[in-house]
Amino acid sequence: MLERLVSGQLQAGETARPPRLVAAMRHGVLNGGKRLRPFLLIETAALFGADGEGPMRAACALECVHCYSLIHDDLPAMDDDDLRRGQPTVHRAFDEATAILAGDALLTLAFDILADAATDRDPAVRCELVLSLARAAGLGGMAGGQMLDLAAEGRRMDEAEIVTMQAMKTGALLRHACEAGAVLGGADAGERAAFARFGVAIGRAFQLADDILDVTATPTALGKRTAKDRDRGKATLVALHGLDRSRRIARDLLAEALAILEPFGERAFWLGEAARFVVGRDH
Amino acid sequence: MLERLVSGQLQAGETARPPRLVAAMRHGVLNGGKRLRPFLLIETAALFGADGEGPMRAACALECVHCYSLIHDDLPAMDDDDLRRGQPTVHRAFDEATAILAGDALLTLAFDILADAATDRDPAVRCELVLSLARAAGLGGMAGGQMLDLAAEGRRMDEAEIVTMQAMKTGALLRHACEAGAVLGGADAGERAAFARFGVAIGRAFQLADDILDVTATPTALGKRTAKDRDRGKATLVALHGLDRSRRIARDLLAEALAILEPFGERAFWLGEAARFVVGRDH
Repeated sequence: MLERLVSGQLQAGETARPPRLVAAMRHGVLNGGKRLRPFLLIETAALFGADGEGPMRAACALECVHCYSLIHDDLPAMDDDDLRRGQPTVHRAFDEATAILAGDALLTLAFDILADAATDRDPAVRCELVLSLARAAGLGGMAGGQMLDLAAEGRRMDEAEIVTMQAMKTGALLRHACEAGAVLGGADAGERAAFARFGVAIGRAFQLADDILDVTATPTALGKRTAKDRDRGKATLVALHGLDRSRRIARDLLAEALAILEPFGERAFWLGEAARFVVGRDH
Repeated sequence: MLERLVSGQLQAGETARPPRLVAAMRHGVLNGGKRLRPFLLIETAALFGADGEGPMRAACALECVHCYSLIHDDLPAMDDDDLRRGQPTVHRAFDEATAILAGDALLTLAFDILADAATDRDPAVRCELVLSLARAAGLGGMAGGQMLDLAAEGRRMDEAEIVTMQAMKTGALLRHACEAGAVLGGADAGERAAFARFGVAIGRAFQLADDILDVTATPTALGKRTAKDRDRGKATLVALHGLDRSRRIARDLLAEALAILEPFGERAFWLGEAARFVVGRDH
């Protein structure tokens, strides 16, 4: 479905979809990512009894936002990366201007997908999804987190600053994934809050695992450059706490996440597996 | 209100708003633009009896999208401009990474503003606004138009290609301005279509005036570099038709726009003035 949404097919209200822009967007999203965020959204929705086109569309919108952020983060003015998931980054495969526009267009497409009646027949639910994604991705979320990350290069952040930066840069979208699934499934306020907390725990564990991998993995296994945080003097919790303590914190976060799933029993099996994967992954 | 929306004040679901990012966003939006798009939206809404916070918020969202596009278009990888409205462009006043993020965050904020219940109590109306803005700004609208414009540098586009490119790059947002006003005012399908056509005519006239000014105005009057299209061999209708014929086409478009307003009589006075301004402006 993601491929169909990011295609050349015109929607009402559009004039033309330039093939080069479509190709750059496809390069940025259809490149074998893990699809962790879509998985969390779809499984959370399923836990509350929602499946089919709605959760799938919301998951595609979320992946569009995730991939736009990777395209822009990889730009020369940002992290200046040539490789992503083992492939040339979008500005290397195309050019910088096209990469900027492909990111812009993917971000915009996400809200197009969510606001469309095909995502949920209740417009109030669609508005909730748009609002949640915009807050998670914007200046108080992911974009703001990237700003804090860039501003911190070369200076030493304390633990609280690192936690805030990572909660915004990585955590906000993972939290949105779980909250959006709950919203689509018609969860009540308490359940929605519980899944927001689950997303936050997963998000922190995910970032720790990422930082640990940056120190321990090989570029081949990871499909991108490693040790780049250390080379740039970037602040991470791993640099602050060391590997052993970081792994312990990640395990505690996993326990916290699994405890939130506990009341849901077997129905939460795949979400539990995802949480375990996040902490134990080697790529 | 635009200043309040692009401020450091946290919204629910946000973690922190980094001051540097807020400053760059403010630099990009609070810089004395003409606010033509917000004016069209608010006046169209007023024509249909809607005023107050709703149209003002939708107008702010639209201006966020317009200004994000200017910030990204000015980047070195795109048009590489140092000056905008007589001020340093965002990447000159801050840096490239911050300018990219400020554009991203403004685009995201636009959908945050529209989806919020304060914009309209009917979520179906809010979804309409989100969908219309996303289509106007995305790969089949403004972002796609910028792609076509960049791809055409150095080669000769024919008239149909130029019209398509300009309809997407400039026209789509102006059309959205008028349609969104009609949607907020509860216009029926026929009225909405009429104001979409009004926006299209205004958009084409606006682009012609812009291209004429690029040839005839001084940098001081315009607050930005002039003759840059010609210097780059960029295709414009003015280059194709010459000044006289271009001015005639602009006048015909004005007549077309005013004819659409005619049935609304005195109530459409300010929209008519805006149409006249678009064609007759000298900056």
